[in-house]
Amino acid sequence: MKRPHHGGNLDWAAKLANCPLNSLVDFSASLNPLGPPEGVHTAIKTGLDSLTTYPDPAYGQLKDALGQWHHLPAHWILPGNGAAELLTWMAWEFAQYPITYVVTPAFGDYHRALRTFRAQVQPCHLYYTPDTLSCAVENLEKSLNNAGILLNNPHNPTGKLFTQKQLSAFLKTYALVVVDEAFMDFLPPHQQQSLIPVVQDYPNLVILRSLTKFYRIPGLRLGYAISNPERLLKWQNLRDPWPVNSLAAKVGEIVIQDRAFQQKTWDWLIPTRERLLTGLKALPSLIPYQGSANFLLVKTEESSVVLQEKLLKNYQILIRDCLSFPELGDRFFRIAVRTEEENQRLLNALAEIL
Amino acid sequence: MKRPHHGGNLDWAAKLANCPLNSLVDFSASLNPLGPPEGVHTAIKTGLDSLTTYPDPAYGQLKDALGQWHHLPAHWILPGNGAAELLTWMAWEFAQYPITYVVTPAFGDYHRALRTFRAQVQPCHLYYTPDTLSCAVENLEKSLNNAGILLNNPHNPTGKLFTQKQLSAFLKTYALVVVDEAFMDFLPPHQQQSLIPVVQDYPNLVILRSLTKFYRIPGLRLGYAISNPERLLKWQNLRDPWPVNSLAAKVGEIVIQDRAFQQKTWDWLIPTRERLLTGLKALPSLIPYQGSANFLLVKTEESSVVLQEKLLKNYQILIRDCLSFPELGDRFFRIAVRTEEENQRLLNALAEIL
Repeated sequence: MKRPHHGGNLDWAAKLANCPLNSLVDFSASLNPLGPPEGVHTAIKTGLDSLTTYPDPAYGQLKDALGQWHHLPAHWILPGNGAAELLTWMAWEFAQYPITYVVTPAFGDYHRALRTFRAQVQPCHLYYTPDTLSCAVENLEKSLNNAGILLNNPHNPTGKLFTQKQLSAFLKTYALVVVDEAFMDFLPPHQQQSLIPVVQDYPNLVILRSLTKFYRIPGLRLGYAISNPERLLKWQNLRDPWPVNSLAAKVGEIVIQDRAFQQKTWDWLIPTRERLLTGLKALPSLIPYQGSANFLLVKTEESSVVLQEKLLKNYQILIRDCLSFPELGDRFFRIAVRTEEENQRLLNALAEIL
Repeated sequence: MKRPHHGGNLDWAAKLANCPLNSLVDFSASLNPLGPPEGVHTAIKTGLDSLTTYPDPAYGQLKDALGQWHHLPAHWILPGNGAAELLTWMAWEFAQYPITYVVTPAFGDYHRALRTFRAQVQPCHLYYTPDTLSCAVENLEKSLNNAGILLNNPHNPTGKLFTQKQLSAFLKTYALVVVDEAFMDFLPPHQQQSLIPVVQDYPNLVILRSLTKFYRIPGLRLGYAISNPERLLKWQNLRDPWPVNSLAAKVGEIVIQDRAFQQKTWDWLIPTRERLLTGLKALPSLIPYQGSANFLLVKTEESSVVLQEKLLKNYQILIRDCLSFPELGDRFFRIAVRTEEENQRLLNALAEIL
């Protein structure tokens, strides 16, 4: 069976682990283990009748709800079939410029989307040690008024959090700045470094957000872009009229209002990630990086592919190798922060292997 | 409130009709009034747990089921987020050729997709009278080995059914032939003129199918392309990894096996469409066209926009104006075949107005 290109291909892993799919402990997909919130199933069941009509192509109710949440007018928001669908139209936009800088290592799907429209890509490497992370883009020429730049914040897979101030410099320099904030909502509000508060000041800014990771509904597909209404209307006219299914639209309206679930996630993540980091540091031949999201990047002396196979075959645990990030290769792996008990299970398994 | 570009925007219509959305009788979207089949809700409820993991990017189970249904190897099939998403990638492919012939009048979303990739389009007009329908493309130059052609069968909005023989001529002439068979399954098997039986013989053929219309699940989004595996793999690498949500994938597997529902639909459609056609013919100033799908095109002496407004405001009935088909304009409208009782309600309303 061919190794899958993307994380989250559980069929492949379950076969290798020789166990049923739901016996796997999946550290490869960075999903909130506390989710989905209770409201999801109810919203779907009450939304079943809506399946017999086409979705509202304007997604008015969902946009209103997202707008209220972010204190933005609704027409500054465009829902998508997961953030991945919006990457496609982002790439269409980048292809209008002669060059697109991509902060690497980068999520493999960025490259897929940019290839689709044959955008010219120039990688900008992040430099990172276990203690510091810095980005070569900071040293880039300052007058790139005909270039685009794409990065995510917090950065996947390193977990680095760029500050609003660092990114503001890009906004004054680049013709198009796309910040993928797929993991931003895992940070408590006072720690977030989102550019949403300044989006109305910068017509060259696009922010991408995902609802599938924080609310653990990747099978349902839901994300959104925040940018100036003219650009979003252009994107809407490029793509098909009904990319978001009606159940996802309904669920999106509900989950963003679940303050208790959000607080519970923040309360769980910070101490749990810290304990996982401490546990990893105590193991030989591993160097974990301090990260600000719900995953940790780990440098390993042993090949991550070999480690992945051992963990699958003997412990039914799936970690994310970093082969899809060519700059990292097989000496890095990424793990999601999961429940205390599951994290301990991973630490115990690693202690036995290493 | 702005007039929507596409059919099925019920919010706009309900506002004009001054009634709740579910009181509208919607003849504008050509959906099967007998659907959805019973299995849909059950499949969704049992599929809820699958939402916490990413969909299988290969959509293996769904492709297997569709392959069995069509007696094709699974890798000749690519599921999509409704047929509309697949139109996007079809357009990418057409843009690789210097010219794309589009049989017009054509579904507006064809033009949207072709514009996205700046494909060069040449319209080919269908000529039609109430008794005959013929297509200018039949007279096109026979050696267009560097051109593409796009049409649907049965044709929307005329309802014309091209024969396999007519289309086979295109397969020998054009470098790329895309046949959108979104409404083909409304015809009983012995009347269908699908090109699926010959798809393995023609590497230049793509067939698009929809499951949302026949099974009445437009809110869930599900369609698929049938073509040679190399092309489908190329399309898969152009688009995001998880375009089809897990519930749609599960429902797709179930509904195509519901032979009783399929038979019930065929048994309903043929006599019901015939009675609706007869009823329309009996009305003054209307000329309905004989159609082979679950909708009828009607020529009208009065503006279809005026007629649409009268039907909405006084009868809460929504018909499809043909403004999105520029070749037809406001002297045509399209109506779905609905239940006997609803069709009679439309006929009565038209009799009062005209």
